[in-house]
Amino acid sequence: MEKIRRNERMSTMLKILSDAPGKLFTLNTFCALFGAAKSTVSEDIDALRQTAEAFHLGSIETTTGAAGGVTYWPRVDREAARAYIQGLCRELSGTERVLPGDFLYYSDILSTPETVNQMGRILATEYADCGADFVLTMETKGIPVAFATANALGVPLVIARHSSKVYEGSAVNINYVSGSGNIETMSLSRRAVKENQRALIVDDFLKGGGTARGMVELMREFHVAVVGMAFVMATVEPVKKRITGEKSLMTLEVLSGETAEAVVRPASWLSA
Amino acid sequence: MEKIRRNERMSTMLKILSDAPGKLFTLNTFCALFGAAKSTVSEDIDALRQTAEAFHLGSIETTTGAAGGVTYWPRVDREAARAYIQGLCRELSGTERVLPGDFLYYSDILSTPETVNQMGRILATEYADCGADFVLTMETKGIPVAFATANALGVPLVIARHSSKVYEGSAVNINYVSGSGNIETMSLSRRAVKENQRALIVDDFLKGGGTARGMVELMREFHVAVVGMAFVMATVEPVKKRITGEKSLMTLEVLSGETAEAVVRPASWLSA
Repeated sequence: MEKIRRNERMSTMLKILSDAPGKLFTLNTFCALFGAAKSTVSEDIDALRQTAEAFHLGSIETTTGAAGGVTYWPRVDREAARAYIQGLCRELSGTERVLPGDFLYYSDILSTPETVNQMGRILATEYADCGADFVLTMETKGIPVAFATANALGVPLVIARHSSKVYEGSAVNINYVSGSGNIETMSLSRRAVKENQRALIVDDFLKGGGTARGMVELMREFHVAVVGMAFVMATVEPVKKRITGEKSLMTLEVLSGETAEAVVRPASWLSA
Repeated sequence: MEKIRRNERMSTMLKILSDAPGKLFTLNTFCALFGAAKSTVSEDIDALRQTAEAFHLGSIETTTGAAGGVTYWPRVDREAARAYIQGLCRELSGTERVLPGDFLYYSDILSTPETVNQMGRILATEYADCGADFVLTMETKGIPVAFATANALGVPLVIARHSSKVYEGSAVNINYVSGSGNIETMSLSRRAVKENQRALIVDDFLKGGGTARGMVELMREFHVAVVGMAFVMATVEPVKKRITGEKSLMTLEVLSGETAEAVVRPASWLSA
């Protein structure tokens, strides 16, 4: 076999690591793949860590000891995050996307993979240390961004639904007051989570906070702690939500007039 | 500025390219990023193409001319795909996951990012040349795998819903006959797709094909051609579905007895 060069090893390792954020790979995995000595792979990883830092590609962490190895975490620094979200705000602001009832059309943004993945990486960076065992969302529109966040945190996604389906087995149902003031049902399969886990809630839209409050109550039924709540978009009004401690990427204000206009701004924590 | 080495350039390029499958990057993008000459970046890309091929990391394509550049496509070769799906089949087979009504619990598989991304890459490899402009799915459980497939194909995801929501604007609704024989409604925002586009349908589960048939009819309303239909799981019974030409990753048969047992097998096309 031809000797494998450092540039081949480094490129390949970064690809394998970044395809599985949060997953621990032992050095032996790469020694075997490349037919290389541990010292060689170690040096590769050191170089890779510096490259990732220099080009803002994420964070490469090594742990030593018997259970040691190397792990990749996607990270977006604050400045890049703010610039990215500002770009989205420009795209979403204006009159064209306002729907009757002062809603904003942004389903396209919520299902464009490149955008969704970047939002997921930004949220994962912000909630990197919250110790979430899974990401929780409520169907439907928040699923892609919740999935992208879960991917970047290296944890599973759990989807609460409006009604329990026969093919999910026994479920816990709760009632909650939705934004429109109706009593709705939220359902989650008993198999989906375990007691004493930690949940990060991620959803697309926050207005009054009824649905988010419902998710918090659902987690209480499962004896799961909610360690964070993140949203793509939060309305400026009402100021007082039914939840506290949440973060959103953008805020939405709709100015009425002859033609309603959406003003979308990056959330203030992105400027901190 | 310290000179940037080839191993740094190659690792960084592969990371940037693979974060945006299907996106064309001009060589100038990388020349500017690295302060390197075009000939240098060209050589890097050649080396990267060989590395990607040698280690089965996907495909790196270069196009020449004024609009030229470099694009990354995730690819899983047939053998690796079959081995991966065989592993999933082992995990899903047996008595533990069978629910009342002979349904199979696999929601966990459908929302574990690493698994879902690999399934998405396998489906994207199979439908690489179908020319899809977007991936279409019907809420809810298939959304993550449809999103992962869309990501790997570099196209947006479009989500059909059970009912039109006020915040999606005007919508097209159709009625279809669901698996349980009920008449149900499927809805899609008018803004979501354009006439004469091409759709790849991706969903989690295929039994009779009623929902899939509904999606085909929905696309007809939008004058969109369906260029492929892919499912994570298809039941062996009924043999005759309401659609034809679909591919699934796995087939499901539930053997009745004192304890019902699921037999999950890789689809035959994976062995071809």
